[in-house]
Amino acid sequence: MNHIITLLTDFGTRDSYVAQMKGVILRGLAGCHIVDASHEIPPQDILAGALTLRDYAMGFPANTVHVAVVDPGVGTQRRIIAAEVGDQKFVLPDNGLLTPIIDDFGLNRAVELTHSQYWRSEVSSTFHGRDIMAPVAVQIALGVDLELLGPSVSDLQRLNLRPPEMAPRSARVEILAVDRFGNIILNLPGSWLDALKEGQTTVKPLRLAIQAGESYWRALVVETYAQVIAGELVALVGSQRRVELAVVNGNAASMLHLTVGSLLTLELE
Amino acid sequence: MNHIITLLTDFGTRDSYVAQMKGVILRGLAGCHIVDASHEIPPQDILAGALTLRDYAMGFPANTVHVAVVDPGVGTQRRIIAAEVGDQKFVLPDNGLLTPIIDDFGLNRAVELTHSQYWRSEVSSTFHGRDIMAPVAVQIALGVDLELLGPSVSDLQRLNLRPPEMAPRSARVEILAVDRFGNIILNLPGSWLDALKEGQTTVKPLRLAIQAGESYWRALVVETYAQVIAGELVALVGSQRRVELAVVNGNAASMLHLTVGSLLTLELE
Amino acid sequence: MNHIITLLTDFGTRDSYVAQMKGVILRGLAGCHIVDASHEIPPQDILAGALTLRDYAMGFPANTVHVAVVDPGVGTQRRIIAAEVGDQKFVLPDNGLLTPIIDDFGLNRAVELTHSQYWRSEVSSTFHGRDIMAPVAVQIALGVDLELLGPSVSDLQRLNLRPPEMAPRSARVEILAVDRFGNIILNLPGSWLDALKEGQTTVKPLRLAIQAGESYWRALVVETYAQVIAGELVALVGSQRRVELAVVNGNAASMLHLTVGSLLTLELE
Repeated sequence: MNHIITLLTDFGTRDSYVAQMKGVILRGLAGCHIVDASHEIPPQDILAGALTLRDYAMGFPANTVHVAVVDPGVGTQRRIIAAEVGDQKFVLPDNGLLTPIIDDFGLNRAVELTHSQYWRSEVSSTFHGRDIMAPVAVQIALGVDLELLGPSVSDLQRLNLRPPEMAPRSARVEILAVDRFGNIILNLPGSWLDALKEGQTTVKPLRLAIQAGESYWRALVVETYAQVIAGELVALVGSQRRVELAVVNGNAASMLHLTVGSLLTLELE
Repeated sequence: MNHIITLLTDFGTRDSYVAQMKGVILRGLAGCHIVDASHEIPPQDILAGALTLRDYAMGFPANTVHVAVVDPGVGTQRRIIAAEVGDQKFVLPDNGLLTPIIDDFGLNRAVELTHSQYWRSEVSSTFHGRDIMAPVAVQIALGVDLELLGPSVSDLQRLNLRPPEMAPRSARVEILAVDRFGNIILNLPGSWLDALKEGQTTVKPLRLAIQAGESYWRALVVETYAQVIAGELVALVGSQRRVELAVVNGNAASMLHLTVGSLLTLELE
Repeated sequence: MNHIITLLTDFGTRDSYVAQMKGVILRGLAGCHIVDASHEIPPQDILAGALTLRDYAMGFPANTVHVAVVDPGVGTQRRIIAAEVGDQKFVLPDNGLLTPIIDDFGLNRAVELTHSQYWRSEVSSTFHGRDIMAPVAVQIALGVDLELLGPSVSDLQRLNLRPPEMAPRSARVEILAVDRFGNIILNLPGSWLDALKEGQTTVKPLRLAIQAGESYWRALVVETYAQVIAGELVALVGSQRRVELAVVNGNAASMLHLTVGSLLTLELE
């Protein structure tokens, strides 16, 4: 049996926090395969953590336990939960980290972690990732049923994501994320762009007019980077099936001076 | 049998150094579980490496081998040692990296690595982490007794840590570390703050006056972040049982313009 | 049987890309040992990726599969290949990433990945690391012969590395890399410096005159850092048997204002 626990945190790897969690996990389950998903979530950035988690978690083998510690509320009354979505398990603070996954894949069940016999014997007031979440993740990996960990909860905290306003030829959407390459990832499903392409009646390439505040750009709609020359702004369906803006061999976010949360209007020319 | 080797370095992960060490370890012990503890120790910062190592190493399963390579003296006559503390094993340069662990947990025994039959056949003059420490860590994980690796040593190099000056209602201490969240970690045991709280005779919250050079602040003594509002400076016992200064949902070190090594005076108001 | 797959990317670890690849690998081969070699290759820097890969890959156990994703051409017609060098396997875009390894260790064989039955069922146009390279790496780790993956290729893309111009007492060479410590790594084999030392007829220490554009320095030829005081510029044979310039306990690249690609002339004084 291969036990897998993934770790997503905003701890960075300069301090000892991640290593402390790994020690707790391996003490509980010495043969466990610990996967470093990311420790570079910006400090206390729940949205970034939630989107990152959403993009990898469901691709793991069944019964993988995903621990996510972006936890600005540690020490407050915020709940810690264990949840099951599809064939994956999650242990994380109840602060919206799971919202995108629940929206896209549904929620089987969730419990609040209250039964302290599954925790570290001494629980600090500032490091529940080590003292509660890591030990509970070990128990779940070992097969303990979620129901044993605490009472069911259904009123989970939700992230406030602005839903996309979509019309057939236009959309008003928020920038969800900017990745390391400067690609701008929009809160807009790829199906919107696919529909535009299917409705296309000429052989002329599609172009989108893009507006953010007082700034305007034009982006060519493409399938892959191969269709345009370096430096050109393009719109395409990204690897997570969201619409992205990119500059081939360049950094779209720097070029357009845009960041997470900016509102864009897209319109077919 | 699960063999675990942890790696702490100042190599970063941009270069190939860490991966070269992993190759050597897996060539020696293909099923070994290699744990990346940290590779982001600031270059040649023995103090940061020593404190990080201290905070995670003792929490691993028995017989874990911890390799720590923060080694500004590579190529000089500095010794390389293997050591046993509690049920944990260590391989590292003899430059003070082990001082906080020895101070807190004692030293069972240490040997100088001199028996080159346990090393890589070709030893470079600049990368002993790969050529000496990694191969020896494999041997220790496989069960080779420390005594076979070289002669016992007892005069280990020590880090010069300024001991805290503690009175019942005041203390003069050094900043040991600043973590990624800007929390200021003091060379002051949590028991000092606990004693203050136990001696409390009113229901008024405790406050500390804090002085660094010509700067003064007040910090509220709390158990957890939940007790104050965002932006307030607090003093609390951290997850490693040291006194910390923190700003809830903020960065204390930036706000107070303080860094590692600064001297602080704390006094009960 | 221990299956090992190493990952080298320019993805960073802030986004979900690395974790997505790990999910695909573990879905295909749950007990696989995934080694993070580096995810901090500068975005789209094929040279940096190629040199890093060269410096660690051949040190792994036989049949390790090395996946390298520095892939500015994703979505273009650039090929993806699987290759065998010595007892190691590689999966990577055909863009020069393998040039230094082939130059130093030869190429047994290479195939273009064309047989899509070994790929993810849905292949995006922008993330072939996840959709093609990771699944193929799993197949190779499981023992699938390279020939089954696609047709043989022999005309691989090559990196344009300026070959060193070497005379017995002088050399004109390029800076290949600058590591985290600021050490300047030259495209000059250590044997050149060794020959200088063997030809030495006096007991005086050797010195090199170094010129870059209009700037001049002198570097002492040493075996190890132990021979000089902190702050002095030295030339030595590095741990990968290339000539390096270093400043003991300092940062040579910052001090000399030099970067990758700069041309240097070295001459024995």
